[in-house]
Amino acid sequence: MQRSKNTGELIARLFAGDRLAAARLISLVENEMDDYHEIMRQIYPRTGHALIVGVTGAGGVGKSSLTNHIIKKFRDQGKIVGVVVVDPSSPFSGGAFLGDRIRLQRHTQDDGVYIRSLASRGYLGGLSRATYDVIRIMEAMGRDVIIVETLGAGQDEVDVIHIAQTCLLVMTPGMGDDIQAMKAGIMEIADIIVINKADLDGTEICRRHIQAILDIGSFKEGDWVPKVITTVSVASKSEHLQGIDELMGAIEEHQKYLHATDAFEKVKFARIEQELGLIFKDELQKLVFKGLKGTGKKKKYIKHIMEGKGDPYSVVDEILQTYILQRSDEI
Amino acid sequence: MQRSKNTGELIARLFAGDRLAAARLISLVENEMDDYHEIMRQIYPRTGHALIVGVTGAGGVGKSSLTNHIIKKFRDQGKIVGVVVVDPSSPFSGGAFLGDRIRLQRHTQDDGVYIRSLASRGYLGGLSRATYDVIRIMEAMGRDVIIVETLGAGQDEVDVIHIAQTCLLVMTPGMGDDIQAMKAGIMEIADIIVINKADLDGTEICRRHIQAILDIGSFKEGDWVPKVITTVSVASKSEHLQGIDELMGAIEEHQKYLHATDAFEKVKFARIEQELGLIFKDELQKLVFKGLKGTGKKKKYIKHIMEGKGDPYSVVDEILQTYILQRSDEI
Repeated sequence: MQRSKNTGELIARLFAGDRLAAARLISLVENEMDDYHEIMRQIYPRTGHALIVGVTGAGGVGKSSLTNHIIKKFRDQGKIVGVVVVDPSSPFSGGAFLGDRIRLQRHTQDDGVYIRSLASRGYLGGLSRATYDVIRIMEAMGRDVIIVETLGAGQDEVDVIHIAQTCLLVMTPGMGDDIQAMKAGIMEIADIIVINKADLDGTEICRRHIQAILDIGSFKEGDWVPKVITTVSVASKSEHLQGIDELMGAIEEHQKYLHATDAFEKVKFARIEQELGLIFKDELQKLVFKGLKGTGKKKKYIKHIMEGKGDPYSVVDEILQTYILQRSDEI
Repeated sequence: MQRSKNTGELIARLFAGDRLAAARLISLVENEMDDYHEIMRQIYPRTGHALIVGVTGAGGVGKSSLTNHIIKKFRDQGKIVGVVVVDPSSPFSGGAFLGDRIRLQRHTQDDGVYIRSLASRGYLGGLSRATYDVIRIMEAMGRDVIIVETLGAGQDEVDVIHIAQTCLLVMTPGMGDDIQAMKAGIMEIADIIVINKADLDGTEICRRHIQAILDIGSFKEGDWVPKVITTVSVASKSEHLQGIDELMGAIEEHQKYLHATDAFEKVKFARIEQELGLIFKDELQKLVFKGLKGTGKKKKYIKHIMEGKGDPYSVVDEILQTYILQRSDEI
């Protein structure tokens, strides 16, 4: 780990909304450089206030162009916006990733929009931890709204999307039987279901499929029932836009619901719970492997197993018993 | 955790190749039921012998139909085969997942083929750990060859594919600029690059792009340079098959390379290293969270943070300092 100078100065500039300071701090935290725990500690009191909107769904459903229009609407309301794009890019979807950036680029001349892309690899502490940290940094930078766009695949992305207060699950007509398979996602993740590209055939069937799933959902009195909104959003053709105002209305309505009930506290609780878990996991792992590596014991253990003298489960149990388990009653 | 009866009997049946026993044991291990460490411990000495082939690539490149033909070739050689399909299915790609199962189904009447699909969610200990365990169980069941098919996206899938001794990266012509973005994947993961659907336009350009990337790779004398194979594999039209024999030849050649050098030992070492890490992470996490949960301290910490009296980084540091760090020099 390297220590960078002037962290304090960077943080002061971040609080003033400085984009370059934000970029630098995000890099430090992403790469776990410096005393990044100290950075997070210092900015933490300035966070927690933003409206966090999640936008998720399969590739090709038009998440980025939808995000684009949502950004525009929030800008029209005078809000400043942060966008975190989480794409399971490398090594296979680098192309789509670039495409997203290009589509989002029209906002880059606008100081009220700050966009950061996270690849899904190469984070020491895992993608989720990095995303949570980047969102905190954007909050400390003074962003009113943060949009988190993820490709809906893989545990990491699902973990990430749980940070959203209001989560949009985007799909398109013609996904047919796939909708049934999305049942879990619809019930677990979506606050608003967006049928995008609703100028295509099959929109009504798609809506009916979704409705059928919602109808058998066991919602209780006072529960939020996911709203279904149809949209047409093609980035370049604003004359063909449909449903964006309805979508913004649904986001607002869901936010009102959260604040009118204890749901908002639950969302905040869950965010911190998740953060605690991610940081914990990360630190524990580093700790133990640093220890193992330093003494060369790790290699010895692996050789031991390779020679057929043991197995990884026994080795792990042994280490835990010896060094940690003894004290675990106290935790 | 529940304790299931007759684990010993199940293991004995597994060693005899019993499919139902395998299915039951996989469920126990996946769900971390029973004394699953004990199960893994008992089967461990019977594992480590199989040829493990990875098949990875983006959606729609034809991984499943290729896997299908590879299975058939291995069966023709008299080998018994296990297949682990890791698909980041739920909540969004359930459709493709079902499709794969259907395509693979033609083998299900063949006792020499055992297929298991893993969703990418819902594993307590993470997808990677579950996959590693399932592969060990299939080895203990006596499978000669194990094929691991993954969608090449996300950290989990990349972790998983590292278990393969010989890894096929499948792509299709017309991916154009995406190939450049796959550079890292090509260099890091692929032992064999398969250009599937090579009856499509653009096959030659695709091959040249890949060759250009390989040409600037810094291979040393004696290094394995990824082979490029073109194939046409449509599950239903065996008369149009192309390149499958060449592909099998390349797999064999790569295996010979591994065994003729110290590369095979390195692959075995890496597998155990990865396993140790995954189990470790898993156990530590459970340990600490069990401790926190039991005493209600976790909730207290979260409330503390929500009230603005602290932050997760400080809390984690404090817990580590108090309970674990003191002893870490000894590890």
